[in-house]
Amino acid sequence: MSATSRPSPLPKSIATVSLSGTLPEKLEAAAAAGFDGVEIFENDLLNFDGSPAEVRRMAADLGLRIMLYQPLRDFEAMPAELFARNMARAERKFDVMEQLGADTVLVCSNVQDIAIDDPARAAADLRQMAEAAARRGLRVGYEALAWGRHTRRWSQAWDLVQRADHPALGLVLDSFHTLALGDTLQGLDAVPADKIFFVQLADAPRMSMDVLGWSRHYRNFPGQGDLPVADFARDVLQAGYAGPLSLEIFNDEFRAAPARQTALDGLRSLIWLESEAGGFALPAPPVFEGVDFIEFAVDYVAGRELAQRLASLGFVHAGRHRSKAVDLYRQGGINLILNAEQDSAAAEHFQLHGPSVCAIGLKVDDARRATARARALLCKEWREPVGPDERVIPALRSPDGMLFHLVDDIDAGRSIYESDFDLRPLPQEDVAGAGLSAIDHIAQALPAHRLDTFVLFYRSVFGMQAEAVLEIADPYGLVRSRAMVSADQRVRIPLNVSESGRTGTGRFVAAYAGSGVHHIAFRSAQLARTLESIDRGHSAMLHVPDNYFDDLAARLALDDAQLARLQRLGLLYDRDGHGEFLHTYTEPFHERFFFELVQRDGYLGYGAANASVRMAAQAQLRHG
Amino acid sequence: MSATSRPSPLPKSIATVSLSGTLPEKLEAAAAAGFDGVEIFENDLLNFDGSPAEVRRMAADLGLRIMLYQPLRDFEAMPAELFARNMARAERKFDVMEQLGADTVLVCSNVQDIAIDDPARAAADLRQMAEAAARRGLRVGYEALAWGRHTRRWSQAWDLVQRADHPALGLVLDSFHTLALGDTLQGLDAVPADKIFFVQLADAPRMSMDVLGWSRHYRNFPGQGDLPVADFARDVLQAGYAGPLSLEIFNDEFRAAPARQTALDGLRSLIWLESEAGGFALPAPPVFEGVDFIEFAVDYVAGRELAQRLASLGFVHAGRHRSKAVDLYRQGGINLILNAEQDSAAAEHFQLHGPSVCAIGLKVDDARRATARARALLCKEWREPVGPDERVIPALRSPDGMLFHLVDDIDAGRSIYESDFDLRPLPQEDVAGAGLSAIDHIAQALPAHRLDTFVLFYRSVFGMQAEAVLEIADPYGLVRSRAMVSADQRVRIPLNVSESGRTGTGRFVAAYAGSGVHHIAFRSAQLARTLESIDRGHSAMLHVPDNYFDDLAARLALDDAQLARLQRLGLLYDRDGHGEFLHTYTEPFHERFFFELVQRDGYLGYGAANASVRMAAQAQLRHG
Repeated sequence: MSATSRPSPLPKSIATVSLSGTLPEKLEAAAAAGFDGVEIFENDLLNFDGSPAEVRRMAADLGLRIMLYQPLRDFEAMPAELFARNMARAERKFDVMEQLGADTVLVCSNVQDIAIDDPARAAADLRQMAEAAARRGLRVGYEALAWGRHTRRWSQAWDLVQRADHPALGLVLDSFHTLALGDTLQGLDAVPADKIFFVQLADAPRMSMDVLGWSRHYRNFPGQGDLPVADFARDVLQAGYAGPLSLEIFNDEFRAAPARQTALDGLRSLIWLESEAGGFALPAPPVFEGVDFIEFAVDYVAGRELAQRLASLGFVHAGRHRSKAVDLYRQGGINLILNAEQDSAAAEHFQLHGPSVCAIGLKVDDARRATARARALLCKEWREPVGPDERVIPALRSPDGMLFHLVDDIDAGRSIYESDFDLRPLPQEDVAGAGLSAIDHIAQALPAHRLDTFVLFYRSVFGMQAEAVLEIADPYGLVRSRAMVSADQRVRIPLNVSESGRTGTGRFVAAYAGSGVHHIAFRSAQLARTLESIDRGHSAMLHVPDNYFDDLAARLALDDAQLARLQRLGLLYDRDGHGEFLHTYTEPFHERFFFELVQRDGYLGYGAANASVRMAAQAQLRHG
Repeated sequence: MSATSRPSPLPKSIATVSLSGTLPEKLEAAAAAGFDGVEIFENDLLNFDGSPAEVRRMAADLGLRIMLYQPLRDFEAMPAELFARNMARAERKFDVMEQLGADTVLVCSNVQDIAIDDPARAAADLRQMAEAAARRGLRVGYEALAWGRHTRRWSQAWDLVQRADHPALGLVLDSFHTLALGDTLQGLDAVPADKIFFVQLADAPRMSMDVLGWSRHYRNFPGQGDLPVADFARDVLQAGYAGPLSLEIFNDEFRAAPARQTALDGLRSLIWLESEAGGFALPAPPVFEGVDFIEFAVDYVAGRELAQRLASLGFVHAGRHRSKAVDLYRQGGINLILNAEQDSAAAEHFQLHGPSVCAIGLKVDDARRATARARALLCKEWREPVGPDERVIPALRSPDGMLFHLVDDIDAGRSIYESDFDLRPLPQEDVAGAGLSAIDHIAQALPAHRLDTFVLFYRSVFGMQAEAVLEIADPYGLVRSRAMVSADQRVRIPLNVSESGRTGTGRFVAAYAGSGVHHIAFRSAQLARTLESIDRGHSAMLHVPDNYFDDLAARLALDDAQLARLQRLGLLYDRDGHGEFLHTYTEPFHERFFFELVQRDGYLGYGAANASVRMAAQAQLRHG
């Protein structure tokens, strides 16, 4: 759909209600992210101790236009006396708008029971209001609320706007109100583009609840939820709309989160959305060839301890970096880097987070294109100092600071390991180790309110898909898990969050002080054999209670031999319509990460059915 | 309804899923609260690293019976092959039950799409299962899930139990599944009492969402939610049921909260419920005559500062305690006590919480009866050391430690102030002060997960009503408010919570380190006159932005003179169908409490429409 592809992006706006803080803080956050303008939400103005003219100056100083104001509700089709009061009220609010320098007022459809069910009357009222607005050089945008009394769909709102037939009256579209009803913008191409005065965009997770509560508490940015907002935006662009794309998000977590982070996510969301909708085009997302390496920030002591743990799992020391205190460990196709270099990003990471994953290398088709896309989506880049002849690997900071290196083979005749490391010549059987061959998935644990941020990051920057949210009972609270997966499933990143600070996930987030890698799953084609060849004494495998196996036998009707084998090896088991999954875990390393060993035979999930057993065993371990 | 009033209470039980932690922690918490038994939730057993026989011993050592086990789902009316597997599975689970020493297994109605819609078949399957159970001396309770495939109502479950006609098969009733569908127990009196094998009780807040999600995340204890659970329980008792009353609560917050607190709430809930349902009777709740006094824990410095603040609001020093470093301040009918006594409950409170309200005196009809009720509802009592001739005032600890003194006039010829204080002779006009005459309400701020605890405490111990939950936008997050009000509205205690730690409420809870009094509203019959006579220089009244008044004029069509007067005095205004409300606030005292001054003319609320203006002004103040 490049028919609507544009040479320059549309203006981007955000409603102040989407951001936390006082009005000045909200404006500063919107400007810092790079928005072109804002919608002023009425309560933000009422609570501000300064005149509307001061707000106008403040916005202008920050380079922001005030694109919309919405102080009027339940306006049209009221009994005569109330309508007269509404008109008087509108005149007062027009005074405020003149001071604010806002030229468009939003009126959403009346929700009152006493609203009269008479489109002609509603249209006449809107016309009268538009006439009053026009006298001030203002214009009125009318929007259908999904729970309006008589007007719920955009097509009904358009019908009223047509009947009213006034140049200062137009339509405001809001993706949530349309998509929440299962409606689409089909037919919008019949609406003249200049009658679409404004477009508000919001996504939301699918929820089975009343639409009002859903709208008021759970909206989020396009790309963070489950609604077809990109299709909505495509229809808007194809209708010829060339005005601002604006975010109006009512979300309890956004109200509490730092405004600058939220604003950055918002602008990233709109840039991504415009591209997805066939507007201003972004470089295409990377095609992944898998995880190239995982890098751990360590110091000397933690590095030695981790190296021992890796050795017990069959990894071998494969080389030392040419110029840095960095070691490479290998098994099968897995590369693990232990970075103890002073004055590096890793050292900074170690200081903040302790021994933990500080970087992930992803193998992509074209690192330069992937980096250009990330840059356009407001990602911060990182460049590590390199020695002579060493590879410069483009790196992005993920939202909470961890690095993603993007590795391709385009310019280099040799791998990053050949260029940067003194590799030890190793016989093939040493590298085969215990049979771990690849990184199956990398799970991150996040503070609960950061989930939407990371879903948007992976979806927009890396073009990943978000899988369904799973709920897992930790003994000390619920954990929610949502996997982000690349199109070909070669990169899988489950994201885990917990409202409770007492779960394993919650404790990790507190100890780690943020969002970080919580566990890493290595894949084996023959996990039983792997387990028999690793060093059980030092690999610290997690113990699984007998009751689990008793229930497994009852639940999945495994035969006795199969069950005995699982139990002897301490292997958890699951299956889905696609195949089987065997897995087991190590104890955590310094309360940071742990390893999972898996055998995936067609199975698509992550053993969520067994996760609560793992969490209980880990809790048991913590409590001694 | 004393027809079912009993000489001794029914056994009380709680499902382990209702409590946080490992299985041993859950059992200990249930025993510590005083439960007679537990339901073992299957995952708790699977995740436990010990045999079912060990669980049985552990429970027995703690004095707990294992009253129910529910490892079987989607059992009846399955295609033949699956049913055969279910029966094999049941036999394995019966083995576990024998080890556990649990004699009743719960089977809830099948939710699978493949379940066959044939009551005769379902009944035959249940009969076969009951027969297998009976061979082991076990019995099967069948329960209708609200989202079952073919069986959703208890009456349908009873129909299957009747058809199956087996002595080891009976009915399990669950208040949530019945009440969530808007169903009642009408007709239960036709069911023989000995066919009601078990009764599970849960409440829930009213929510417009799918019943499965509602049930899995938002259930709470009877008395914490909005469902008519007491009516349900009354019907159960009147049907002659004499088995355990058991709590089965799926609640995300309970999963994360300390298990001992949750267990205490649970038992309090069941004791209250049994009494409300006309079973084992509690002493009647107190009839309130208002708030008698509020006591602040201070040290010498904070005490002097607070005394100054009170003086600026028109309070006078009315006396000194006969034996303690305790001072009384008075205005109208308001008594405020500043307690700086060492080695007292107040001193302990001061150490934990800083300068803050440590006790509230409530005037009741009969303190002894109120105390007996509180004791039966598991409240902790407190007795302060008293000097010769001083009054012993019964006191209860509220759930998070603050004291409630219960004051009556039954034995005493003189007031507690006359008996305990050296009162200064004061002319009437000094006590009239600035015209503040009574305590209108006392607002508490709580950690979000404590709201249910306090709702239950006030509802059960004091017989208060819970008003609707209101949502208020603080600049840094949402605040929810729910007022607890005595029957005659003489004692009003709004409870405020916020998930965000950045709101005024969230910051208070962090600074105070728990649940505490957040503001106190004093009532004046003529607030304008009060404001003119108080010392504006030292009373630290909160500034209200002009934009608020501009909007008020547009919104409520006040006349210009009225508006000018409100604006000059900095008074917020609201009205409802019952009357008008004027109010204003002081700045906070040491980031602990602040005062509100109100004029209530028939109005029933708390000015929630204006609360966000107050919160924004307070946030502005914090940020300087």
